[in-house]
Amino acid sequence: MNAPIKFEGFEVGYDIPAAPGMDEADIQTPCLVVDLDAFERNVAKMRDFCAQMGVRHRVHGKMHKSADVAKIQMDLGQAVGVCCQKVSEAEAFARAGIKDVLVSNQVRDPAKIDRLARLPELARTIVCVDDIDNVADLSQAAQRHGTTIECLVEIDCGAGRCGVTTTPAVVEIAKAIDAAPGLTFSGIQAYQGAMQHLDLYEDRKAKIDIAVAMVKDAVDALNAEGLECDIVGGGGTGSYYFEGNSGVYNELQCGSYAFMDADYGRILDKDGNRIDAGEWENALFILTSVMSHAKADKAICDAGLKAQSVDSGLPVVFGRDDVEYVKCSDEHGVIADPNGALKVNDKLKLVPGHCDPTCNVHDWYVGVRGGKVECLWPVTARGLAY
Amino acid sequence: MNAPIKFEGFEVGYDIPAAPGMDEADIQTPCLVVDLDAFERNVAKMRDFCAQMGVRHRVHGKMHKSADVAKIQMDLGQAVGVCCQKVSEAEAFARAGIKDVLVSNQVRDPAKIDRLARLPELARTIVCVDDIDNVADLSQAAQRHGTTIECLVEIDCGAGRCGVTTTPAVVEIAKAIDAAPGLTFSGIQAYQGAMQHLDLYEDRKAKIDIAVAMVKDAVDALNAEGLECDIVGGGGTGSYYFEGNSGVYNELQCGSYAFMDADYGRILDKDGNRIDAGEWENALFILTSVMSHAKADKAICDAGLKAQSVDSGLPVVFGRDDVEYVKCSDEHGVIADPNGALKVNDKLKLVPGHCDPTCNVHDWYVGVRGGKVECLWPVTARGLAY
Repeated sequence: MNAPIKFEGFEVGYDIPAAPGMDEADIQTPCLVVDLDAFERNVAKMRDFCAQMGVRHRVHGKMHKSADVAKIQMDLGQAVGVCCQKVSEAEAFARAGIKDVLVSNQVRDPAKIDRLARLPELARTIVCVDDIDNVADLSQAAQRHGTTIECLVEIDCGAGRCGVTTTPAVVEIAKAIDAAPGLTFSGIQAYQGAMQHLDLYEDRKAKIDIAVAMVKDAVDALNAEGLECDIVGGGGTGSYYFEGNSGVYNELQCGSYAFMDADYGRILDKDGNRIDAGEWENALFILTSVMSHAKADKAICDAGLKAQSVDSGLPVVFGRDDVEYVKCSDEHGVIADPNGALKVNDKLKLVPGHCDPTCNVHDWYVGVRGGKVECLWPVTARGLAY
Repeated sequence: MNAPIKFEGFEVGYDIPAAPGMDEADIQTPCLVVDLDAFERNVAKMRDFCAQMGVRHRVHGKMHKSADVAKIQMDLGQAVGVCCQKVSEAEAFARAGIKDVLVSNQVRDPAKIDRLARLPELARTIVCVDDIDNVADLSQAAQRHGTTIECLVEIDCGAGRCGVTTTPAVVEIAKAIDAAPGLTFSGIQAYQGAMQHLDLYEDRKAKIDIAVAMVKDAVDALNAEGLECDIVGGGGTGSYYFEGNSGVYNELQCGSYAFMDADYGRILDKDGNRIDAGEWENALFILTSVMSHAKADKAICDAGLKAQSVDSGLPVVFGRDDVEYVKCSDEHGVIADPNGALKVNDKLKLVPGHCDPTCNVHDWYVGVRGGKVECLWPVTARGLAY
């Protein structure tokens, strides 16, 4: 064997799956690979969509948990900032130099509220509120640290998770935020997560029409009270054109568009085409190797449940119609190989079923271009769940 | 807020979910919590079962990926060593002082074979082989490093993954191993993974009867060739009593028994009782907090897909019949709370659907006893997939 290949003190194989300059063929598997050309094309395309619709884009960092990815989305993609779902993610992004961070979620635990209230020292800090009891806690923490936390009232416009469901509740919380020292009322969070994966464009549109009507009603009522919404935020990869063209939302929060995955890829655009057939490119792959082929029609690969999440279905073998990933156990994937096309140590690129929780099990992204490893990005906020 | 709580340089909340000495109530969520009393009872019980059956136990470290857990299984549980599924896991265990490590899997990539061949400097190193082409590669690497790798021939006795399926194939590979410099033929690996979760005891028994017959045939044929099996290994939490009493297997490889999970808990023992109702105790939990309760009958908790794997079903709320975990998204769990029993910041203990890939998304285990945090164990081999 040759001398160990190192990168920033880490050794390939032992600590990291690859190092810049390596041939793509030498990457250690299983690991996440980003096709940098495809990723950049997705980012630029969404930038142009947002410019055309006249809305800002605050990219969803919980998808990738990577400061490097977020910075490209802000530089090349002209995103105004990131959203994320945890205080720990917000800390990771802010420490990495992202200056505008929305925790698009509730923060209720006293210790986490305290950490959130320190963050404005590093970045504009925005959080969601769906309970008037939260306002006093946030206010006290901000005053304790001499900071200002911006607050959005979260509306549950169909996702069935956090958020209030009536305009009077929105107005009541907004007024409480507006009156609270250390807090600024900054608008509304209204993400309809439950409709993003409906196959049909018209079905998705019908759900967002309802959401837009709810949000418009709330915005109008707030305006009537003299409360302006700097941010009316929401939208995802399955709906951004609806919110973007609504005249009500002014900030989109897409995540998966940048990498794509098999579950999103299956939904259909307004012409009935899969969205991974033109709208967005698969830029994220689980690179895996065949490590057993003891049965003629079945190859076993090294990417199982520890290398991905299968909550939204099994991964799809990219660019191959002749083989199929048919079963996933802890450390193995079973690949149906009816023609015996694969041999041991062959590598396959898998499109993950669901990118967000798949990224969450990895420590590194390997960025590739033209057959070479170009960069290695840590999954900055991985493991920081609490 | 009080001064930061630190442990070995890490700060609670920012880096770690808890520190020894803290009250259990102050643990930051979501995180993995181990009930140390229940864990130790499970470990001692399996030790006694194995002693009674007269077989060794080589605990499956891929379940927990923790050197601390493995050491307790070896000390209190009298296990002879660990098995794991990756060279990276074997390295993590060996570096932590475990002296007897089986990679119960194939190792085919040249770089991984080279790493494996260095491991005997730290620990007895055993690996599985299901392809005669692998023998020369392993032999060359062992010779290059001046080490000895022990090899088991893997039989696919029903799992449908790696392994050969005929006795002549076993004998052929065993002979090649026996003849190869730097390698030692040490026996057979035959884990029937596909039957572990069949509900009925008799259905599981029928599958293991087939496996035992296959393995016995191979062992007899090997003996006839003068090849003795030091290890005939296999068995899991749903089957160990079958292999243990078979007179053929001499080493069990159970993993989940130590922690348990909801999917294993549902299988039935020979009296028709769930195995989590007496045979094994739930010792592993995802501790989660309610972070929104904006709808009267629905609480939202902070343990979603990033805090667990739902490949084998949703988690179960431990010790509560009045609430139910009904939906899992990236960062949220939806808890049906028909009586409005929960309030914001209430904590719940979730029994994970599947312990192995759930442990794999966390960086720490928080060991609790008597309402206090007693220890904090890193998930030693987490992220070391390649």
